[in-house]
Amino acid sequence: MGSKSILQTILFSLFFIHSYSQQTEKDSLSKKHQAKMSVLMTTPKLPVKTIGIFVYDGFNTLDAVGPYHVLSQLMGVKVFFVAKQKGMIRNQTGLKIQVDRSIDEVKQLDVLLIPGGAVETFQMTKDSAVLNWIREIDRSSIYTTSVCTGAWILGAAGVLKDKLATTNWYRAEEMLNRYGAHFKEERWVKDGKYWTSAGVTAGLDMSLAIINNLMGEQYTQGVMLDLEYDPKPLFNAGSVKKTDPMVTDMMRSLYDKGLQPLINPAKK
Amino acid sequence: MGSKSILQTILFSLFFIHSYSQQTEKDSLSKKHQAKMSVLMTTPKLPVKTIGIFVYDGFNTLDAVGPYHVLSQLMGVKVFFVAKQKGMIRNQTGLKIQVDRSIDEVKQLDVLLIPGGAVETFQMTKDSAVLNWIREIDRSSIYTTSVCTGAWILGAAGVLKDKLATTNWYRAEEMLNRYGAHFKEERWVKDGKYWTSAGVTAGLDMSLAIINNLMGEQYTQGVMLDLEYDPKPLFNAGSVKKTDPMVTDMMRSLYDKGLQPLINPAKK
Repeated sequence: MGSKSILQTILFSLFFIHSYSQQTEKDSLSKKHQAKMSVLMTTPKLPVKTIGIFVYDGFNTLDAVGPYHVLSQLMGVKVFFVAKQKGMIRNQTGLKIQVDRSIDEVKQLDVLLIPGGAVETFQMTKDSAVLNWIREIDRSSIYTTSVCTGAWILGAAGVLKDKLATTNWYRAEEMLNRYGAHFKEERWVKDGKYWTSAGVTAGLDMSLAIINNLMGEQYTQGVMLDLEYDPKPLFNAGSVKKTDPMVTDMMRSLYDKGLQPLINPAKK
Repeated sequence: MGSKSILQTILFSLFFIHSYSQQTEKDSLSKKHQAKMSVLMTTPKLPVKTIGIFVYDGFNTLDAVGPYHVLSQLMGVKVFFVAKQKGMIRNQTGLKIQVDRSIDEVKQLDVLLIPGGAVETFQMTKDSAVLNWIREIDRSSIYTTSVCTGAWILGAAGVLKDKLATTNWYRAEEMLNRYGAHFKEERWVKDGKYWTSAGVTAGLDMSLAIINNLMGEQYTQGVMLDLEYDPKPLFNAGSVKKTDPMVTDMMRSLYDKGLQPLINPAKK
């Protein structure tokens, strides 16, 4: 079941449930329905209506699409993609998604989310049009957020200065220090209105935490059930601490191969 | 970091690592590099070269894009989307992805994956062109797989008959029985060449299990680190057993509202 199940079906069902609860006697059945209604009709704690996910050629697929899917479960909130130019935007392996809004057209967002990637993400940290747009959006956003190496872009825009933050495990501390932020090794970090997550799938956990912040536990449990989010990782791995050191070393070498010449040309 | 980091960077790096290991003395450093190389150069246990993910308007975003991202980490394997007609395919909430292959063009796949959804998924269980194509692909596939309610479509095609399987929690047993399959309440189930997963995010766990089956633990740990897949769900929830019963009841009512009239018109 997906976004439609909650987002659209809920809106569709509100009238139905409301009518039904009026017909029902004040017995235990009615109490159950009143409890359900109170979850569905929770008013968000902050007036979030628009969530814009900034994408660019080379974006990491799940960094962007994971939070897109999860946050789309926020009833009455519009979640969409924004790019430097609208049109087809390619992920790292050939997936093309259609983006209908350019940064020139989007002047305000309640929530901004920046996904990561690799080489192209680093290139975005040098793109002044993008960085200026991020600063402009950040001025009035309710939350400014990133997933994975998306924090490099937020950092380059200057909005993480003196903030606690996290990012992908690769050179996490070095990259955040570069932008004046303080690395905190957590799945996701909230410092004021700034949310940052660790790599890729950490964006799912952060998105659920954002939903919880706005809507509370019961609503979030509903979303988690809709996602059947009761993960069972095959191995006790997935973070640097838990991974076979040889494997971590191999992955770091591979990332270095692509990124070292960009990040730290002197040490090439 | 994403697909490119492993898939493309690995290919790019093989020559580099190979040259490097030749230069290095047979000391501990070299042994480390030999170990890394042996992980990278693992030969898949089965000759999987193509993975086709069947999508349709109304597909559940993460059901399809989660496995797409994870399975794209299989070195040397082409992972792509297939639809009844090629062109733009919409998810449940407005995301549009470009699909470059139609079922008429795809006559063989090493791995077929069918994502779920809600109303449109049930409609696919009645689409004879799609069901015939699935049967044709299944005849020579190495693995035939589904995520979430995608099992309804596999079931309708007849390929899960007498098999152990799982699917989204909603009416799981009823729906699998309808197609002659036997429900096993697991995150994912493998019965011979048939893999099925529970709802949405269970597709990530199943995809990692497929990678492990083909490439072994160290390669899989590399992929898990690339995904930073060390999940920390906000609440101990996400499955029927762990969710507040009132919330489960609410979600079931919402799904019933959309699906009951289709699944079981007599009981409307």
